[in-house]
Amino acid sequence: MQSYIDTYKNMRKRLKAYEYAMWVLSWDLETETPEGALDYRSEQVEVLTTELYALQTDSAYLEAIDKLYATRNSLDELLRREIEKIVKDMRLIKKMPKDEYIQYQVLMSKSSSIWAEAKAKNDFNLFLPTLEKIIDFTRKTTKYLQTPELKGYDVLLDMYEEGMTMKEYDAFFLNLREELVPFVLSATSGKKPLSRKLTKGFFSIEKQKEFNKYLTTVFNFDLNRGVLKQSVHPFESNFSSTDVRITTKYLENAVESAVFSTIHEMGHGIYEQQISKDLIDTRLNMGASMGIHESQSRMYENMIGRSYAFWENHFDKLKEIFAKELKGVSLLDFYQYINRAERTLIRTEADELTYPLHIMVRYEIEKQLISGKLKAKDLPKKWRKLYQQYVGVRPKTDAEGVLQDIHWAGGSFGYFPTYALGSAYAAQIYQAMNKDFNIENAISNNEIYKINDWLREKIHQYGSSKSPKELILNATGEPFNSKYYVDYLKRKFSN
Amino acid sequence: MQSYIDTYKNMRKRLKAYEYAMWVLSWDLETETPEGALDYRSEQVEVLTTELYALQTDSAYLEAIDKLYATRNSLDELLRREIEKIVKDMRLIKKMPKDEYIQYQVLMSKSSSIWAEAKAKNDFNLFLPTLEKIIDFTRKTTKYLQTPELKGYDVLLDMYEEGMTMKEYDAFFLNLREELVPFVLSATSGKKPLSRKLTKGFFSIEKQKEFNKYLTTVFNFDLNRGVLKQSVHPFESNFSSTDVRITTKYLENAVESAVFSTIHEMGHGIYEQQISKDLIDTRLNMGASMGIHESQSRMYENMIGRSYAFWENHFDKLKEIFAKELKGVSLLDFYQYINRAERTLIRTEADELTYPLHIMVRYEIEKQLISGKLKAKDLPKKWRKLYQQYVGVRPKTDAEGVLQDIHWAGGSFGYFPTYALGSAYAAQIYQAMNKDFNIENAISNNEIYKINDWLREKIHQYGSSKSPKELILNATGEPFNSKYYVDYLKRKFSN
Repeated sequence: MQSYIDTYKNMRKRLKAYEYAMWVLSWDLETETPEGALDYRSEQVEVLTTELYALQTDSAYLEAIDKLYATRNSLDELLRREIEKIVKDMRLIKKMPKDEYIQYQVLMSKSSSIWAEAKAKNDFNLFLPTLEKIIDFTRKTTKYLQTPELKGYDVLLDMYEEGMTMKEYDAFFLNLREELVPFVLSATSGKKPLSRKLTKGFFSIEKQKEFNKYLTTVFNFDLNRGVLKQSVHPFESNFSSTDVRITTKYLENAVESAVFSTIHEMGHGIYEQQISKDLIDTRLNMGASMGIHESQSRMYENMIGRSYAFWENHFDKLKEIFAKELKGVSLLDFYQYINRAERTLIRTEADELTYPLHIMVRYEIEKQLISGKLKAKDLPKKWRKLYQQYVGVRPKTDAEGVLQDIHWAGGSFGYFPTYALGSAYAAQIYQAMNKDFNIENAISNNEIYKINDWLREKIHQYGSSKSPKELILNATGEPFNSKYYVDYLKRKFSN
Repeated sequence: MQSYIDTYKNMRKRLKAYEYAMWVLSWDLETETPEGALDYRSEQVEVLTTELYALQTDSAYLEAIDKLYATRNSLDELLRREIEKIVKDMRLIKKMPKDEYIQYQVLMSKSSSIWAEAKAKNDFNLFLPTLEKIIDFTRKTTKYLQTPELKGYDVLLDMYEEGMTMKEYDAFFLNLREELVPFVLSATSGKKPLSRKLTKGFFSIEKQKEFNKYLTTVFNFDLNRGVLKQSVHPFESNFSSTDVRITTKYLENAVESAVFSTIHEMGHGIYEQQISKDLIDTRLNMGASMGIHESQSRMYENMIGRSYAFWENHFDKLKEIFAKELKGVSLLDFYQYINRAERTLIRTEADELTYPLHIMVRYEIEKQLISGKLKAKDLPKKWRKLYQQYVGVRPKTDAEGVLQDIHWAGGSFGYFPTYALGSAYAAQIYQAMNKDFNIENAISNNEIYKINDWLREKIHQYGSSKSPKELILNATGEPFNSKYYVDYLKRKFSN
């Protein structure tokens, strides 16, 4: 057995080095590579992908994994979990016939640009044939991967959030539908979407960067093991806890945009920075799931970053940097502005209250697409109907409706629900933490490190060595329960 | 033979992809990697280096190279030159015993930081044992690589500038010593180094970036295939003509610093951008030599960028951006300021006139170190003596004397002379170009593209498919001749 472990660990080390290179190449693509270099870059990346694929499918490596998996109960706990995850991740590549797998990769390499064109032209039919193929492939995938326990959409849900099935999501969204939809529709009724900005000020990017730098110190995001950079779309990306990079998009007419996207990405980043060093050489050296990750980013952004206590503390700094631009704006004005709730069409711009309803639309639709009950061609109609029903608005165009998100073009079915789940996890984790110490006081006293420390101990340190369910139970003392989320939203938005 | 060609080209493609990854990793190291990630990064890079080494020493690949080299006269010209270059580059790895080679790599991995500490502490003796080892290794290297034609220092000179030997360098530096030293000593006599700045203005980095962006359009540096970025040390780095990256260091109290370092690096960059696309998949897809590269950067920086015609054209733009900071500074003031000549101690800060004399000191010393005539321990004394003799100043400390440059700590003996050679090439190329069209007029008419076009045709397009000597002959109609350089300097600095 030891020789299989040695083979496995040796290959893991090599694979990690390649993956590190691929990670830097992808960071470089997102932030530096000039347009004119893209074709030549693709050729190099194709060769490297082939090299990496050859390593990943090396027969001695595969044999070692098979043997270790067969005797996994005799392995130490970390290695066992690692092997289980790898076997799970490699299912598709093993079960789908190779030519079908390649066909799917080819489809994927084109689909995003077809979607982008369809969105730009507001022409759903341009995207429809591609989308139909993607859905077909996805349904086939669920067949290849199904088990006695998991079939259909459940297979996909489990890929993005280990252990979550329709049964649990249905209960979650039912709770939202019954409790939240009426609340939201009433709270936002008669309100038109606010077009006004906080001020008409022009917020220089240099000064915004200064404030964001300040935020890294407030949150203890470690720049010795991290990067904060400007880019076209905000994102977090990392390779090990020693190199965690986040980017922010700056809008010169809306200072709050970069503030909250930076706090959001720092939430992801602090999670990754606080993973135990013991996991650094393993495959468990990353956040546990999409949902857990999103719970951290949304807790930092919404529950901490948009709290009154937070801005009581830091609004002066913002006004110091933007004295002229924020003249006449009071703390209360600012607080209300950053917490306004309104019926809108675009998920990524939705506020904290209405956000989960946008997700609920997508969840319903995905479920029906994968079961075959809904056909792709009927999507736009279904979309408008559900938006009217859950969010209380109806898109006039497909560009601001069913075409708005890139996810389906990338074959990501089952991903959306984790966004809402993350917010709900966050509320449950927050109330558990609040029993150990008063979070608002910590925020008021500029002691966010207390929050970081608690999260490190209960969640972050484990990386993906524990499942999402174990983490939630471990951190909160009970299984996932969506009532905390509904309670939190109602309380916050009743004021 | 075709099967060897196929093997070679297939391996070249794979090797290039790895080298592309290593290049991006190194760019990332220079510009992004956070301090705290360095150790973990090193581990990954070590693994990748091992993988790359295994490819480079793959037996089928080596066999193909040997066979192709043996029958190189039957190959097409490009492939022949490529094979010859590879065989030359691989000499050391083949001829030095493996454990000695590894020992040397280990020494190299530490030497720069020892040098940096010695420089910071102004303590030559701290560096001396390391330097002695490096010199020993270097002298052994020359033995491993010697041929009937090339021995000792000549081996090293040829590594950095193909075909150049002591015989030619001696003649070059003799010309400088006889013609330039007396001229410089007289031109700078009685002058104290100017400590004054152009103005006491504070030049915001944002505005400097704006002017540098403007410079990219003036010089037609193609940002669609290039990057212009800020960093701690200016440099140019590229992988193919489609991805050419330059960085600049900005000083808030000296606007000219970034201007000229950007033009210098653009000179390197334009060279690389103009290499023929036909070479992109070959190993000839890079500048021909250190000397030719430096001739381009120095021509753009000094002969174009510091010319009166250039600033007649662009000083208004600079004053538009820095209206307040440059108030009262005339075009003539500016021109004289950026072309002042003075006796100084630090090579990298030396002006155009005195620069080659700094190099001459290093050339003399390297020659004697490699021949064994000079011992490392006697370096500081020798350094002070030669500086007094050639530059007319005497360093008070070793930090501003013999410890100032990193090159020897990196084992780079034979590199320095190419800096002076590059300037001399530049003068010869310039006069040849000036016969085809009036360069000053082109600069005045904002037609720098004419210069780019001429250089593309005569030099750039060839990458390293021609040797430096072929390029100089091809571009100027005669072999290298240092008189153009001396004439140019005397003419420019007599005014």
